[in-house]
Amino acid sequence: MALAKALEDLIRLFERFPGIGEKSARRMVLFLLQQPKSFSESLAECIAKCNSLLHPCSRCGNITDEDPCSICCDPFRDKSTICIVESVEDLITIEQAGIYNGLYFVLGSLYSPLDDEEIVPQVLERLVKRVSEEEVKEVILAFSPKVEGELTMNLISKIMEPLPVTVSRLSYGLPVGGSVSFADRTTLHAALEARTYIKRGEGRQ
Amino acid sequence: MALAKALEDLIRLFERFPGIGEKSARRMVLFLLQQPKSFSESLAECIAKCNSLLHPCSRCGNITDEDPCSICCDPFRDKSTICIVESVEDLITIEQAGIYNGLYFVLGSLYSPLDDEEIVPQVLERLVKRVSEEEVKEVILAFSPKVEGELTMNLISKIMEPLPVTVSRLSYGLPVGGSVSFADRTTLHAALEARTYIKRGEGRQ
Ligand SMILES: [Zn+2]
Ligand SMILES: [Zn+2]
Repeated sequence: MALAKALEDLIRLFERFPGIGEKSARRMVLFLLQQPKSFSESLAECIAKCNSLLHPCSRCGNITDEDPCSICCDPFRDKSTICIVESVEDLITIEQAGIYNGLYFVLGSLYSPLDDEEIVPQVLERLVKRVSEEEVKEVILAFSPKVEGELTMNLISKIMEPLPVTVSRLSYGLPVGGSVSFADRTTLHAALEARTYIKRGEGRQ
Repeated sequence: MALAKALEDLIRLFERFPGIGEKSARRMVLFLLQQPKSFSESLAECIAKCNSLLHPCSRCGNITDEDPCSICCDPFRDKSTICIVESVEDLITIEQAGIYNGLYFVLGSLYSPLDDEEIVPQVLERLVKRVSEEEVKEVILAFSPKVEGELTMNLISKIMEPLPVTVSRLSYGLPVGGSVSFADRTTLHAALEARTYIKRGEGRQ
């Protein structure tokens, strides 16, 4: 049977979301069509609102409706530590585990020369500027333990070399081959506690 | 950290979809916000189009943009057999397995007195009318093998009692406790082939 075209089109759009296969997409769309019209209206409104109100924080890259974001502005956070993450999703995962009280920096991608994935040069410049100008004592690298994560660690370590900061990475309590976003609170906590020091900064220790 | 309110709201909306937990909802929303604006525009347009063009087929309850639907109108389908399913999702699952060439009838829900779930009386009236007036020889009950499925089978069997049709159900090759929608093609095929006859119709055999 050919599905009605509009139905087929909507299922294809839902399939583009990460982790959503054909059956899940179909189930989501049929659910959507069975809701009162107000549900899809709220959804459309809310998406439009997010698109217009939300933007990356100019300091850390977190998704925010103010600038700088609430994390960067929080006077109770430890401003001498910056945790560098691949994505906002990873930032939120660490944040919601409630195990970290410093600031963040979102790279937006990992360095993956084989896939032709570069980290945007301006992002790296902003990182260096921030670490140089602010009273940063430690930079924690919190990438998912896979090849691209390792390559990115090497890259960032090299960039941090001339700066007077300590560089550490999360310990491999993380399941290798897995992803920061799917780690549970305990694993994340252990990985943070047992972080391995890559370089000891002398300047601001 | 408190997420930006618009972001939080959108994640909560995505969590309402079946099978979507907090982490999946967050991942989907962050993906959405990272797409070009045209993606969310297509999504909103496509949802609006579905809401305005699609409706249940007046004969079988399938979701369609014409009436009756393309299955009901297909001259090559066996009009003497009607497969009764709980939902459009189950209809599509059976249909896409390509193992059945008769017509359908969607109940919209199962009979579940403990959850105060009734099948809409008008739906049952439409079913009886259709089986009485059309040249139906066999009605196949294709409900997920769980308590509500059994209760619904009993209910439909009783309703079919006075009518000159054969009533069968899918064989329990289906994993018990599972759902029609997640069965694979082979399981569905076996379940259809080994269907158990509940009542032999004499009138039109
Ligand atoms: Zn920020
Ligand atoms: Zn139909």
